[in-house]
Amino acid sequence: MTRLEQQIAFILEIDKVKNIFRQTPLSDGNRKENDAEHSWHIALMAILLKEHAEDEVDVSKVMTMVLLHDLVEIDAGDTYAYDSVGMQSKREREVKAADRIFGLLPEDQGAYFRALWDEFEAYETADAKYAHLLDNFQPMLLNDASDGVSWREHEVKKSQIYKRNERIEETSKVIWEKMQEVVAKNIALGNVREG
Amino acid sequence: MTRLEQQIAFILEIDKVKNIFRQTPLSDGNRKENDAEHSWHIALMAILLKEHAEDEVDVSKVMTMVLLHDLVEIDAGDTYAYDSVGMQSKREREVKAADRIFGLLPEDQGAYFRALWDEFEAYETADAKYAHLLDNFQPMLLNDASDGVSWREHEVKKSQIYKRNERIEETSKVIWEKMQEVVAKNIALGNVREG
Repeated sequence: MTRLEQQIAFILEIDKVKNIFRQTPLSDGNRKENDAEHSWHIALMAILLKEHAEDEVDVSKVMTMVLLHDLVEIDAGDTYAYDSVGMQSKREREVKAADRIFGLLPEDQGAYFRALWDEFEAYETADAKYAHLLDNFQPMLLNDASDGVSWREHEVKKSQIYKRNERIEETSKVIWEKMQEVVAKNIALGNVREG
Repeated sequence: MTRLEQQIAFILEIDKVKNIFRQTPLSDGNRKENDAEHSWHIALMAILLKEHAEDEVDVSKVMTMVLLHDLVEIDAGDTYAYDSVGMQSKREREVKAADRIFGLLPEDQGAYFRALWDEFEAYETADAKYAHLLDNFQPMLLNDASDGVSWREHEVKKSQIYKRNERIEETSKVIWEKMQEVVAKNIALGNVREG
């Protein structure tokens, strides 16, 4: 296979992520969104919200990171953030998926994508922390806009949301404040459980 | 409104692009894809196919350009590439949409996004030409993978595809060769009409 043929094989393989549906509804509440839509959304958010990050971030790298961060779910499926059983096997399933999917690319490009995914997963660098902020903030905005239907469905508690977002403040005080505001509003509305 | 509130209003507004459906099916042929999915796909392709561009391109800029290039369709709708009547009013409808949608952002960010959209539309710079290549090549790959169902449905002719892609060769000889190969294969299969 030529490099172009390998690239096309990868491009067609990742088309499948458009069929991996998440728990988050679209803002109009009419259906759940899929990984491709989510990734598109947070890549644009990466550009718009950069000014709120405490540390300098490489937006171009973060965009690439978030565009590819969910590709492993083609094999591993979407694990809901508050599914504690699924979370235990998530890592193993996703590493296997990364080996296969990034392995379709020419070696240099596969290694580059894999390194970005590993960096995202390790959640250590300023870029990875900013990517996680985007990954968490976007569904919160959609849940809020769609009247908390997904929070109600899963009986989500404030403590679960706070636990999941415990490192957001390191990355952006302003966004963390907004997140707390959104949670408080949705507790008052009965969408999120106190406790 | 604070800058963050303006940014959030824009983020929620553009969620609507997930409901703008195109004529191109997903590679599995099961449903048509929407603008958010399409934009996600070509942003990743921007990174992967850079080596095939004749001129130097700024991938980070192209990624942003393609992520936002279809936002105007929230108001203007998707105009099928081979709908010659719709194409006549397309420009006017889209400019109005750009004014409104990019106008939701803080002024500096709205101006930046608008400039990138204008550059894409003008189709003059190496970056815009590369963005158009991606925008055309991706649906061709999906149409080919889904057995040409959309080409058959619209009775698309070789001359229409060649006309639409007449400037691809300037941007990448290798991709243009691949495109010709795909068209020839689909003429042989009876998916694209000769002539």
